[in-house]
Amino acid sequence: MNYSCPNLAIGIDIGGTNSEYGIVNHRGEILLKGKIRTDTYTTVEPYLNELYDKLMPIITKYREQGNIIGIGVGAPNANYYKGIIEYAPNLRWEGVVPLARLMTEKFGLPCLLTNDANAAALGEMTYGAARGFKDFIMITLGTGMGSGIVCNGQLVYGLDGYAGELGHTIIRRGGRKHWKTDLEGSLESYVSATGVVLTARELLQQSNDESLLRKYDLNKINSRMVYECAIAGDKIAQEVFRFTGQILGEALANFVMVTSPEAVVLFGGVIKAGDLFLQPAREHMEKNVLPLYKNKVKLLYSELNEADAAILGASTLVWKFQREQRYNQ
Amino acid sequence: MNYSCPNLAIGIDIGGTNSEYGIVNHRGEILLKGKIRTDTYTTVEPYLNELYDKLMPIITKYREQGNIIGIGVGAPNANYYKGIIEYAPNLRWEGVVPLARLMTEKFGLPCLLTNDANAAALGEMTYGAARGFKDFIMITLGTGMGSGIVCNGQLVYGLDGYAGELGHTIIRRGGRKHWKTDLEGSLESYVSATGVVLTARELLQQSNDESLLRKYDLNKINSRMVYECAIAGDKIAQEVFRFTGQILGEALANFVMVTSPEAVVLFGGVIKAGDLFLQPAREHMEKNVLPLYKNKVKLLYSELNEADAAILGASTLVWKFQREQRYNQ
Repeated sequence: MNYSCPNLAIGIDIGGTNSEYGIVNHRGEILLKGKIRTDTYTTVEPYLNELYDKLMPIITKYREQGNIIGIGVGAPNANYYKGIIEYAPNLRWEGVVPLARLMTEKFGLPCLLTNDANAAALGEMTYGAARGFKDFIMITLGTGMGSGIVCNGQLVYGLDGYAGELGHTIIRRGGRKHWKTDLEGSLESYVSATGVVLTARELLQQSNDESLLRKYDLNKINSRMVYECAIAGDKIAQEVFRFTGQILGEALANFVMVTSPEAVVLFGGVIKAGDLFLQPAREHMEKNVLPLYKNKVKLLYSELNEADAAILGASTLVWKFQREQRYNQ
Repeated sequence: MNYSCPNLAIGIDIGGTNSEYGIVNHRGEILLKGKIRTDTYTTVEPYLNELYDKLMPIITKYREQGNIIGIGVGAPNANYYKGIIEYAPNLRWEGVVPLARLMTEKFGLPCLLTNDANAAALGEMTYGAARGFKDFIMITLGTGMGSGIVCNGQLVYGLDGYAGELGHTIIRRGGRKHWKTDLEGSLESYVSATGVVLTARELLQQSNDESLLRKYDLNKINSRMVYECAIAGDKIAQEVFRFTGQILGEALANFVMVTSPEAVVLFGGVIKAGDLFLQPAREHMEKNVLPLYKNKVKLLYSELNEADAAILGASTLVWKFQREQRYNQ
């Protein structure tokens, strides 16, 4: 081991389409980045082979500059305790994938996994909007909704690593049926980008009011179109984000009374709508909490570059190995 | 300090009517108990004087048998971080009462406070149904609903000590208006003993079906009467508990997906209805969680004697002082 060199971490963000990796130092600087496709592989072994071929030369190179102490992975349906990815609907690998073990065998480096939303929370806590916070909630609003809860400076993993599925809690009992889970009225079905599209379709069908959105085929509307029409002043598109914000705010009120966070950090495509969405979210959060909690909870945007956040978050898992290394020297 | 003697704690449970205290050893045995009235005092000073007069002779006596290392207090609206009781609607002391400081000045012993539901959680974790659990939720169903959340072996206090107010989260949006908070559809308004009575009244008014409950004045029904009629086979009274259990189960499903506990421990008068209430609670909890969480969460009754639970729970706060004592020797 090179004692004069800095410790370095490998962070990998496994998404449904691409996997991005980076070599990260302690200050959260990504020294080098790269990516491979995830979706070309129906099984994990050939995927790991390509990752190895791309990453190993980099690892070899950076070993001259620093101690690479481990690999941190953020992935959908990843379990921190077990080091596995389980039945991830957005990945083509089926069943249970013991990724941490496979990674360690392949690369000869210790590896820890966590789900993508938890990785985002770790990234914000270490390098982003939640620096210095011991109690906060991370919410990612992309195609789906992810969340990570930090209490007393620790991620809440619960009994077997599956805590923090705020998107599946019911916010409108008997409400909109979720496209995957069949739960009725769950938060994700309203506040994710998918939810934004569903709300837009509903509003367009419920009225004959003019809307810029009517120039699109109802079944081809995406959240970006709704965003662009809202920015252009379209009333229905703006109502979509107001309603989305209201639902999120009502849900946040509940969550605030559960874990009493200092802040809620928001990340992902939906938050691009800015105040059209954030203002009603804040209003309905404040309206639905006890006086005890009013005007205390910060509603913040992520401070991490969207392209880097997941790599950074995943890399923070690795610093845990430093102590163990010291003990083992 | 007597090194051959066991360490002892004083546990005090401050309720709206009475305050109960006990000398507790490490094994959770209450060596001596007593109580004074809480509600005869409109301010805290004369209350503390009576407590001092009752407790001090006992403290003096037990100092010969053990090292009394501190006072732990469970009280409504108590804040662990600040050591204060704030605007407790069930106590006659108004405003903010810095009880921990006042206790320490009076008794010359370190003092920690926590709210009554958190004390119950600590009691169950140390001596009761949650022994060995690192992740569980404590729910007390009395006149009101209290709750304490334990994650990773620690009580969740949140930013400023007010986490865990599950009773005020909204379970039926636009539903029953809470008698104190004005929130609509909050959990406490359905599943507390007060909620049971309100449900009974509603059901009696909504139908003309025969019911044993009709022998009582509608405005004088209490939860005990509903329980007795339910046990006697009354259909409406049984429906009250079924509905109450359903609402609790639906709420538990949400909480399970937030913190993923190993168990939910229930305590208080309402749970006396047993399976009339617990069976629908379990059914609707399981029905509303993702498959990932199904059949994993234990729904348990408290294992502590109701008369002792609060004293025991409060006393556990004190063991924290042991380490500090060792350092200060």
